[in-house]
Amino acid sequence: MNGKFIAIEGLEGAGKTNAIKQVGKILQEQGVHKIVFTREPGGTPLAEALRTLVKYGIDDEVITHEAELLMLYAARVQVLENVIKPAVTQGAWVVTDRYDLSSQAYQGGGRGIDSGLLNTLRDTILGNFYPDLTLYMDVAPSIGLKRVRSRTSGELDRIEVEPLAFFERIRSRYQILAEKDDRIITLDASQELSEVTSALRVQLIKWLKNKGY
Amino acid sequence: MNGKFIAIEGLEGAGKTNAIKQVGKILQEQGVHKIVFTREPGGTPLAEALRTLVKYGIDDEVITHEAELLMLYAARVQVLENVIKPAVTQGAWVVTDRYDLSSQAYQGGGRGIDSGLLNTLRDTILGNFYPDLTLYMDVAPSIGLKRVRSRTSGELDRIEVEPLAFFERIRSRYQILAEKDDRIITLDASQELSEVTSALRVQLIKWLKNKGY
Repeated sequence: MNGKFIAIEGLEGAGKTNAIKQVGKILQEQGVHKIVFTREPGGTPLAEALRTLVKYGIDDEVITHEAELLMLYAARVQVLENVIKPAVTQGAWVVTDRYDLSSQAYQGGGRGIDSGLLNTLRDTILGNFYPDLTLYMDVAPSIGLKRVRSRTSGELDRIEVEPLAFFERIRSRYQILAEKDDRIITLDASQELSEVTSALRVQLIKWLKNKGY
Repeated sequence: MNGKFIAIEGLEGAGKTNAIKQVGKILQEQGVHKIVFTREPGGTPLAEALRTLVKYGIDDEVITHEAELLMLYAARVQVLENVIKPAVTQGAWVVTDRYDLSSQAYQGGGRGIDSGLLNTLRDTILGNFYPDLTLYMDVAPSIGLKRVRSRTSGELDRIEVEPLAFFERIRSRYQILAEKDDRIITLDASQELSEVTSALRVQLIKWLKNKGY
């Protein structure tokens, strides 16, 4: 039997790392033992190399919005074909830190890339292969960025240094997309960690029960 | 006054390097003094990093046809926006070793990627910015590959190891595209080097005169 595919989405500082840990824990409690964790961009050697290029660039070269999007999609098709699909086919549950919704929100909402290109890439690259469930961790950018900046000792990456308005546009796109897709569950991630964790538990167990998994 | 943009295209071993040298020499003789040479994939630090990933991959990871295409287009938009357009705008003539026609031929003809995706990428990334002239060096793959293998001391890259049929499909796509575009001049590159060089000189000077440059 095929496994399932769960994506965790949200802005910087939304608590994705904690959410992924919780999802893994709950799935195990519920009897799911084959779980594969991955992340985007990344998850394969080539995709990780692309991640580094996207996050840090080279020699201060200006990276066009289009090149950023295309590198992210190149990374996506690699992890999809080489990691996610094979794992799901072999019955594993895959939990990913970010997936296609990130491109819709960051490159579409944040960078203002035309939806024609986004939709062509999505349909060509992903076909009908979407996450069974996406947990969108909704956080106010001011709160999320404060969390990121308090925990980051080193330099911020190319994305993290963007102005607040950039992250406001991303959040707004995330919210619009989450609203109209019933495979996306929104969690209020502006709350305290313990509250987010309990809400996630309630929602995930409810989803598992509803689906009969 | 804006400069001009010339692309040199063709299979491995078609003699592109010599052709570029000749084009530079002829342009200078004809009074063009600002000439910028570049290559694809490559021409900027990020695009060169993508070139290395496309040509050699990482850790034997299988590179999907789609990821290959997307990395090539990411490299293309970088060299276009950061090198080619600024140079042409400042009045330079840009001579590039490969451009978009390579994706049409290699990823379209060679890899069999659907023209819907190719056309969307071309139109979104390039807009109306095409080479003023493309010199397509048409060579039989058996001749071109023999030249490559005789001069290569080291390992062949991911593309060079493909079977003859792959290069036959590419040549065929190149020929079809060259046929229907009057901005593309085909040169018979299966001939001896001296003959190719004379033919190139005749054709390029004729083109320059016709255009009044």
